[in-house]
Amino acid sequence: MDSLARLSLNQITTERASLGETVDACARHGIPYVAVWRHKLAETGVERAVRLVRDAGIRVSSLCRGGMFPALTAAERAARIEDNRRAVDEAAALGAEALVLVCGPAPDRDIAAARHMVADGIAALVPYAAERHVRLGIESLHPAFAAERSCITTLREARCLAQTFDAATVGIVADVYHIWWDPELHDEIARAAGRLVGFHVSDWPVPVHDVLMSRGMMGDGVIELQRIRMAALDAGYAGPIEVEIMNEAIWKMPLDTVLPLIKERYLACV
Amino acid sequence: MDSLARLSLNQITTERASLGETVDACARHGIPYVAVWRHKLAETGVERAVRLVRDAGIRVSSLCRGGMFPALTAAERAARIEDNRRAVDEAAALGAEALVLVCGPAPDRDIAAARHMVADGIAALVPYAAERHVRLGIESLHPAFAAERSCITTLREARCLAQTFDAATVGIVADVYHIWWDPELHDEIARAAGRLVGFHVSDWPVPVHDVLMSRGMMGDGVIELQRIRMAALDAGYAGPIEVEIMNEAIWKMPLDTVLPLIKERYLACV
Repeated sequence: MDSLARLSLNQITTERASLGETVDACARHGIPYVAVWRHKLAETGVERAVRLVRDAGIRVSSLCRGGMFPALTAAERAARIEDNRRAVDEAAALGAEALVLVCGPAPDRDIAAARHMVADGIAALVPYAAERHVRLGIESLHPAFAAERSCITTLREARCLAQTFDAATVGIVADVYHIWWDPELHDEIARAAGRLVGFHVSDWPVPVHDVLMSRGMMGDGVIELQRIRMAALDAGYAGPIEVEIMNEAIWKMPLDTVLPLIKERYLACV
Repeated sequence: MDSLARLSLNQITTERASLGETVDACARHGIPYVAVWRHKLAETGVERAVRLVRDAGIRVSSLCRGGMFPALTAAERAARIEDNRRAVDEAAALGAEALVLVCGPAPDRDIAAARHMVADGIAALVPYAAERHVRLGIESLHPAFAAERSCITTLREARCLAQTFDAATVGIVADVYHIWWDPELHDEIARAAGRLVGFHVSDWPVPVHDVLMSRGMMGDGVIELQRIRMAALDAGYAGPIEVEIMNEAIWKMPLDTVLPLIKERYLACV
């Protein structure tokens, strides 16, 4: 990786900044892509966001996030699908390469039932996404998040689920933080050929204190970033590589400090 | 589960008490098994521990823990294997049903190499354990511990590794806290028939703050304990069921409060 051509700044990495501030900083520092979060998009407004991004000459690698399908009642599940349709609209407006699906936890102890609700939810969303040419990216989350964020916990599970749909509309997102520990990691990345619609990097620090909020900057942890990135490229992934780091210490850094650091670590470690 | 006949108190659940205090409390409250930790055994001394346990009429479900095989140098790896032989001696002296192996993390970023070191370490230990009729139980740990405690992260991985050895000497330990999230959980428990040498229970609270130190009492989290316990029984597991909870709040409770609570929750939730 000898250039920044595929680098994307996932805006959760700059959580304290507005979308406008993040996009301007990307333009200033030569980062060609941004990944947009919906709570930031809501602050800015979709039309203004589309203009901000276009005027800055930045492309949108993904919109984060749809998903959260499981719920106790049919009415609530229908409301979640409706909200996902709004996310598809937003992804289409932004020209995002994918809408990331964080699929949601079980509303009770029945994780198997929740997995069926996820499959049903995606099935309900697919025609709407296909019509609007928005690709959905199922992201498996680290098993530490199984109870609170995603019952989809492994690349294999995400891939098998994605393969029940048309590859033009449903793929998977590989985030190294969530998958690095998997004994089947490299086999599964190879099997994901043609389905990878996103690739996210950060690092796993040691010791880890808070699995949600202590993600590390690339190079500050134990993940074999280059090896995993090469596996994704070998599987044919040719899209943007997002830097997605939830970490209070990084959130406190000024944009003009953190963006150069991201570029340096991306070139050195990814 | 209508009796306490298989209940074992893993003594990390009563971390503030000595082995003697824990064994006495088990006898007082009608808990037939204890799982012994080596740091507690070292405090007490092996001979005295054997006497304490025998005199109280308590059986030892397991000794925790051997393992920690990966290391940077051959000399250090040999020292780890030698330490595991001492653990086998202790397990034999205590008549423990199994020596639990927490296999260890990679000493660097190369988790695949660490997995080979684990396989090599177990291979070196097996003849010594077989001669002493000590069964080794490979425990897969939650992926959140992959960087600091165990590169063996799934039941499948533990099972496939165990199956490269004689079933009389090498099996696997299923701990619900580590495996509940796995989409292949029930298939893998079924495939582990004849290899299960330990079954541990606790619960996964929501929200989880510290994956190491916030394990919950059975019933205080989202794990489908009864369903998983029935799967283990269906796979032919007929051994003790250990309650293993690392949790500061539980450690602060008096033994005569926590043991009745464990019995109550075990009968109601496991």
